[in-house]
Amino acid sequence: MESYRLVATGGRLETMAYAAAQASIGDSEFDRDTTVTARADESGVYDAELSAGWTIITAVNGGYLLALVGRALSAALPHPDPFTVSAHYLTSSVPGPAVIRTEVVRIGRTLSTGQASLFQYDENGAEIERIRVVASYGDLAALPDDVRTTAVPPAFPAYEDCLGPEAGPAPIPGSNAIVDRLRLRLDPATAGWAVGAPSGKGEMRAWFELADGRDADPLSMLLAVDALPPTCFDLGLMGWSPTIELTAHVRRRPAPGPLRISITTRNLAGGFLEEDAEVWDSAGHLVAQSRQLARAPR
Amino acid sequence: MESYRLVATGGRLETMAYAAAQASIGDSEFDRDTTVTARADESGVYDAELSAGWTIITAVNGGYLLALVGRALSAALPHPDPFTVSAHYLTSSVPGPAVIRTEVVRIGRTLSTGQASLFQYDENGAEIERIRVVASYGDLAALPDDVRTTAVPPAFPAYEDCLGPEAGPAPIPGSNAIVDRLRLRLDPATAGWAVGAPSGKGEMRAWFELADGRDADPLSMLLAVDALPPTCFDLGLMGWSPTIELTAHVRRRPAPGPLRISITTRNLAGGFLEEDAEVWDSAGHLVAQSRQLARAPR
Repeated sequence: MESYRLVATGGRLETMAYAAAQASIGDSEFDRDTTVTARADESGVYDAELSAGWTIITAVNGGYLLALVGRALSAALPHPDPFTVSAHYLTSSVPGPAVIRTEVVRIGRTLSTGQASLFQYDENGAEIERIRVVASYGDLAALPDDVRTTAVPPAFPAYEDCLGPEAGPAPIPGSNAIVDRLRLRLDPATAGWAVGAPSGKGEMRAWFELADGRDADPLSMLLAVDALPPTCFDLGLMGWSPTIELTAHVRRRPAPGPLRISITTRNLAGGFLEEDAEVWDSAGHLVAQSRQLARAPR
Repeated sequence: MESYRLVATGGRLETMAYAAAQASIGDSEFDRDTTVTARADESGVYDAELSAGWTIITAVNGGYLLALVGRALSAALPHPDPFTVSAHYLTSSVPGPAVIRTEVVRIGRTLSTGQASLFQYDENGAEIERIRVVASYGDLAALPDDVRTTAVPPAFPAYEDCLGPEAGPAPIPGSNAIVDRLRLRLDPATAGWAVGAPSGKGEMRAWFELADGRDADPLSMLLAVDALPPTCFDLGLMGWSPTIELTAHVRRRPAPGPLRISITTRNLAGGFLEEDAEVWDSAGHLVAQSRQLARAPR
């Protein structure tokens, strides 16, 4: 436990060094780019603009989309925080206008459930559904403090020993605007694929912050669980690995400071793979878990 | 690997011994109790009867519900097999009539996506939604044979060394009709809670078969992932642990013979816990994975 605290302290010190330029929750690149605007004439319908800033090659990142839909559901439901969010990805999103249609499914005392679909438009203006989400929301601040977890934080090198973009070529090949939105520092043990030497284990670990220093919150963690390079890279499979379905559980409000994200794949078979992510905050709490089913690169 | 094969052989021998009474896929208790009947006058709408045979205390088992909704989606979609099924549980189901309303969301070449809600009726005949599901279906038989999994089967005692109902008091306290529908044999290491000595690890492992010997298929695995005693029992928390959300990935058609199911909980915190299940078939393949978010017993 002590060595872990030293690591976290390292991360905090690093954070302090650039605190002068730090954006805040509510006033940041991520908040501006996930803004949703309620339509005055249609209840539960929100307009949004998918920013070109969160793309990989030409597709909008799936975690960014999830955060955007999550923000709309947060507006539509009486409870503020995503507890469990299940998303099925239908078609690839592109930068530009979008509309999110929400439905309140059930309102309970401690949890409420909603559904949302994000649509974009074809050349005739018809709506094309991109992603469909069912989610249960609650209030993380209202949860009791009991922690009986048996999970331990993954072994992680110190922040300063992980690899940022300055370490060499862009960690994701191709044109990837999202790289500039994030301050990702990859564990060198899971970065071998960038120099043609993947570990073969199907693991990806990174320190994660938004580039403008905005601290994490439940919505930004919906982005974080799908923002690392895919684990198939570490299995030696370079290429597109589209998400079929992703479910995230947000378990606790994260402490300020960088997150540590660990993603593992155990079962690559039949052309599909699962990616299990866990997100740890700077105080050593497991704050989110997610699992996705993705197609393996062809 | 050799010791595992011996275990599986043991399981097969056990299965052979009662083969005379074995039901088959399509003609079994499970198939009859998950029958859905398409309404002639409403496309995509299916009537069903929730059987009292699959209850725990008074509530209908969540895995049984999922299998029933899964069967309706299998009828509604052009692809036969559930690949990823996300269910949000809204209200408790009771034995009796139900209606499943499905929607085809998207039809693709290799995957199609659908949505389904199961409703029951209040005293005035109004529909009450019990469970809402979004799922992507494909054809397991069409998948390539590549397996690059790093997952290994969990350490499991031989079938004959696990504990069936004959070992003592009912493994789940109370009146539980579902116990008679299943042939569960618990790993003694995860059965201590039944005699007041839980391991504290948050694990549950069992050999799983349907009581009439019907072999497993993708639909029965939707039942299997939520049919063991809850892991919170092994953490010393006896009581009701309702599922909020459960997502199952079916990765492969299971071989005939008993399944081995291993469920773990790593993060019990803030009044909630996750349950991660993996299902292994008698041929040593990881055939399904699931994760649920549940409330911890109060």
